[in-house]
Amino acid sequence: MDASTSDDTLARLAAVIESRRGGDPERSYVARLFAKGGDAMLKKVGEEATEVVMAGKDGDAAKLTAEVADLWFHTMIVLAAHDLRPADVLAELRRREGMSGLEEFALRKARAREQGQP
Amino acid sequence: MDASTSDDTLARLAAVIESRRGGDPERSYVARLFAKGGDAMLKKVGEEATEVVMAGKDGDAAKLTAEVADLWFHTMIVLAAHDLRPADVLAELRRREGMSGLEEFALRKARAREQGQP
Amino acid sequence: MDASTSDDTLARLAAVIESRRGGDPERSYVARLFAKGGDAMLKKVGEEATEVVMAGKDGDAAKLTAEVADLWFHTMIVLAAHDLRPADVLAELRRREGMSGLEEFALRKARAREQGQP
Amino acid sequence: MDASTSDDTLARLAAVIESRRGGDPERSYVARLFAKGGDAMLKKVGEEATEVVMAGKDGDAAKLTAEVADLWFHTMIVLAAHDLRPADVLAELRRREGMSGLEEFALRKARAREQGQP
Repeated sequence: MDASTSDDTLARLAAVIESRRGGDPERSYVARLFAKGGDAMLKKVGEEATEVVMAGKDGDAAKLTAEVADLWFHTMIVLAAHDLRPADVLAELRRREGMSGLEEFALRKARAREQGQP
Repeated sequence: MDASTSDDTLARLAAVIESRRGGDPERSYVARLFAKGGDAMLKKVGEEATEVVMAGKDGDAAKLTAEVADLWFHTMIVLAAHDLRPADVLAELRRREGMSGLEEFALRKARAREQGQP
Repeated sequence: MDASTSDDTLARLAAVIESRRGGDPERSYVARLFAKGGDAMLKKVGEEATEVVMAGKDGDAAKLTAEVADLWFHTMIVLAAHDLRPADVLAELRRREGMSGLEEFALRKARAREQGQP
Repeated sequence: MDASTSDDTLARLAAVIESRRGGDPERSYVARLFAKGGDAMLKKVGEEATEVVMAGKDGDAAKLTAEVADLWFHTMIVLAAHDLRPADVLAELRRREGMSGLEEFALRKARAREQGQP
């Protein structure tokens, strides 16, 4: 897989999600979720996260890959519903990066939790 | 953002996660999660998914972007723990694609749920 | 355990939660959650549900009991924050009951999902 | 509602769940979940927890009550699948109690999280 192909995956997927918006709920899964509304999308995020957790416990690599794909896919639908794109998430990940940056962020958050917690 | 940059984000992030494995838990957030083990990572997936749901309810685009970034980041740590990479998830997404393909998959799953499901 | 004791557990627990409201966040865990606000409570529900899922996968009865206790406890804090009591939930469970009633409800919900779903 | 009635709710519900085990999956929602197996039950816990979070964000008391009832109901099915009863959870809640005891527990856990935690 080369870089452009991989990028195309998320960008193309986002474009297709966008194109399904307002489509026929009887023919498109994405259109159905848009028709049902925000809670239905968010519920799917909770569901798919639970499936990721279970696949992780099972240690089943193929299942885990499929469930993470499901989870990312449904988060992309939620993003679309708020006029956001995977590119926004990738930019956020880069922004925290150097990874030192990202870890610093996560550690800062962990420490904040330690002080103010629960 | 051009294609190669965006791909680099996930691939580079995965590489940095990999490099933190076995690192000093006092200095690296990722190393801490690896030291704590699989349940700690999966718990974070559940937590971050909950934060995505709450940000979605709030309709706060910046927060939603940040929480989805957190969720993707932690799923990538889980992937790494199972020797998987974002590229595997992207390949899975492409495999289902044409999007027709992906939707077909999701609709098939919904129908299966309709027949057997509680 | 006799009936009154068991009832006392939830009612007494709710009373204690209520009494902690507005207490010192440095000395009371419940007061801390109230001070942090609704999102902190709901986040705990997501976390504890994930722990129940993991304990269920482990098949560890003691851990599962403890995690369900944690989950019920935190849902009771959320209830308190909305001026609700365990008694309201028990009344709802009774309302659906006969169990025939409850199952009818769940099956109706499952069927609705089959028609309108995702 | 008097004490014995309230206790009866959970105990009676557990008894009915138990009686559905091995029943006809076409006629009983609980039997369907038992037939589908542990993952289906745990997935419902994740789903219902997500619904509690959304109802909490909505601040809708009636919906919150119903979703907490759903969540408790499904955790009771998980308990039954592991030969546990609500009485075990209530005993665990009492064991931690005085509430001082329970809060001590929660604070100890929070502190442990502060030391070892990501």
